[in-house]
Amino acid sequence: MSISINSPADFHVHLRQGPISELITPHVRKGGFGLAYVMPNLKPPITTTEQALKYKTELEKIDPNVEYLMTLYLSPELSPEEIRKAKKAGIVGVKSYPRGVTTNSDGGIESYEFYYPIFEAMQEVDMVLNLHGEVPSDPNANIHVLNAEPTFLPHLFKLHAAFPKLRIVLEHATTRAAVEAVKQCGPTVACTITAHHLSLTVDDWAGQSWNFCKPVAKYPDDRQALRDIVKEGHPRFFLGSDSAPHPPHTKSTSTPTHACAAGVYTSPILLPLVAQLLESFGALENIGLFVSDHGRKFYKIPIENQKVGTSVVCLTRAPAGSIVDEKYVSGNESLVPFWAGKEIGWKIAEQ
Amino acid sequence: MSISINSPADFHVHLRQGPISELITPHVRKGGFGLAYVMPNLKPPITTTEQALKYKTELEKIDPNVEYLMTLYLSPELSPEEIRKAKKAGIVGVKSYPRGVTTNSDGGIESYEFYYPIFEAMQEVDMVLNLHGEVPSDPNANIHVLNAEPTFLPHLFKLHAAFPKLRIVLEHATTRAAVEAVKQCGPTVACTITAHHLSLTVDDWAGQSWNFCKPVAKYPDDRQALRDIVKEGHPRFFLGSDSAPHPPHTKSTSTPTHACAAGVYTSPILLPLVAQLLESFGALENIGLFVSDHGRKFYKIPIENQKVGTSVVCLTRAPAGSIVDEKYVSGNESLVPFWAGKEIGWKIAEQ
Repeated sequence: MSISINSPADFHVHLRQGPISELITPHVRKGGFGLAYVMPNLKPPITTTEQALKYKTELEKIDPNVEYLMTLYLSPELSPEEIRKAKKAGIVGVKSYPRGVTTNSDGGIESYEFYYPIFEAMQEVDMVLNLHGEVPSDPNANIHVLNAEPTFLPHLFKLHAAFPKLRIVLEHATTRAAVEAVKQCGPTVACTITAHHLSLTVDDWAGQSWNFCKPVAKYPDDRQALRDIVKEGHPRFFLGSDSAPHPPHTKSTSTPTHACAAGVYTSPILLPLVAQLLESFGALENIGLFVSDHGRKFYKIPIENQKVGTSVVCLTRAPAGSIVDEKYVSGNESLVPFWAGKEIGWKIAEQ
Repeated sequence: MSISINSPADFHVHLRQGPISELITPHVRKGGFGLAYVMPNLKPPITTTEQALKYKTELEKIDPNVEYLMTLYLSPELSPEEIRKAKKAGIVGVKSYPRGVTTNSDGGIESYEFYYPIFEAMQEVDMVLNLHGEVPSDPNANIHVLNAEPTFLPHLFKLHAAFPKLRIVLEHATTRAAVEAVKQCGPTVACTITAHHLSLTVDDWAGQSWNFCKPVAKYPDDRQALRDIVKEGHPRFFLGSDSAPHPPHTKSTSTPTHACAAGVYTSPILLPLVAQLLESFGALENIGLFVSDHGRKFYKIPIENQKVGTSVVCLTRAPAGSIVDEKYVSGNESLVPFWAGKEIGWKIAEQ
């Protein structure tokens, strides 16, 4: 048995900077993907068109055979003029991070009203708003990592009502509440789902830092809602891996004063992993919709318009006992992928 | 300012076996306590009177100046005859572990009806049933580490209804639901609360394995319920530290295939820590009730009946900048306590 998928596209990926970028950027293609929607949470964050284009050039130097769709980091430095400039330069979206919730989000937003002129400009030029849909924890309001996403959803509804033509993506949804919210919204609101959130629940990251990421994986019923919407083939739900590399020692080890890094790294095994997971809950026939068609349609990037990186990728059954690599190494950098050392049933066929 | 507490008693503690026991048993007294209610989850578990008495002798050899109250592990080996024998030998309680939920619980129970003859005998001779009140996770039923305790509560109600005179302790409660359940029960049902669950929420163990324990710390509102019941001074709620030592490398490090050990070690700093926490939420005036009077009354162990280990312990303000030890070492064994390296505002006054 084999499956052919035309030009898989990952609509949420972290490609970092410097030596680690050299290691991970080629993993986009290794994992079966020729399009990467690139997050802007670098140090410093990507807040100008100029920075984004420079970053794109750096990524193209590492692997020219991937289409990189660039984003800006929503911050006070952004202006409606910069939005129009960015659109002309081919930048696709603007990512909003709530302050302090995830990796390099210290410059994140606290309130959206301040940014309404930006959103107005984005709506006008048809740029996409990517939302990290969590509010910061607040013990006094009983807000914590497990209800941070449902508590955010009123912001999504409010933004959608204020800017009904603005295309909005709720990123890496993890809850039934988020799935229902996106379904209720109009055709301009979509949702990415990661591979790992189709696999994990809270029990999997309790005491297991390798499975710890933000948003944290939620309850089994939430995971079921994610699986069900993929199985249903709803057109506004598609893959965004949120593949996020961290040095192994920051994942494996916590001290009494330092927690582990949040993030799960799926890039190098992404397409086989998605196949494995979709098959496990009977949704394998939707893989092409989930990893290519739905996202492309929402982002208005048909295969024929993609400049580089398109190809029909063929998945075949992996030999029995095939396991995911324990580690990837390049120079002083190394990374441990999700599913490391575990058996995987699919592989990308040699071209 | 100083506080005098008459003969603090820890009604839930793990003292282990072998070299680690040599290190931790003296920490009971170091932490301000002269009575330890000792858990039976050794390898193999303590299932007979003979084993329990032998274990008690071992503990007394390490530190004779603590009163050790012994327990048996609820298992099919137990018989009504053994219960009567245990009672005569001074064994106080029987601990029930749900299968597979916590450290050394592989022999735990799956259904309580099987044990009704045991409970009948326990009720008759007035032994205490100690419940680890969690059900095992079951993704198909949406049961996970965060609702495992509320899902257990119907078992508590059923046991209490079937054996209304049997004294039952719901151990290490972590949820508002558990607090409410115990309050609703009659005077034969009590509840222990740990120090660390008065401090932590789910956000504190997300990616931070040192704060990972079972039951896991829950939501801020649950922690508030624990704090409120201590502040209220409800007589059926008292301290059981569940202080549980694990080698530092098993706490600090997880691999993709091995999670961290579950457990928080509070023994050596227990009384100052409890003072610090109670003061933080305005319940310091109840410290004597919480760490001595309430538990003693429920267990029917007035200070005058305690054979060894009684003393008035005096807490004083620690000098500014006092921090909790980073590590305790003895031979090849070492342990990192909860609150390691953090400032603590109270200390036990030199006698």
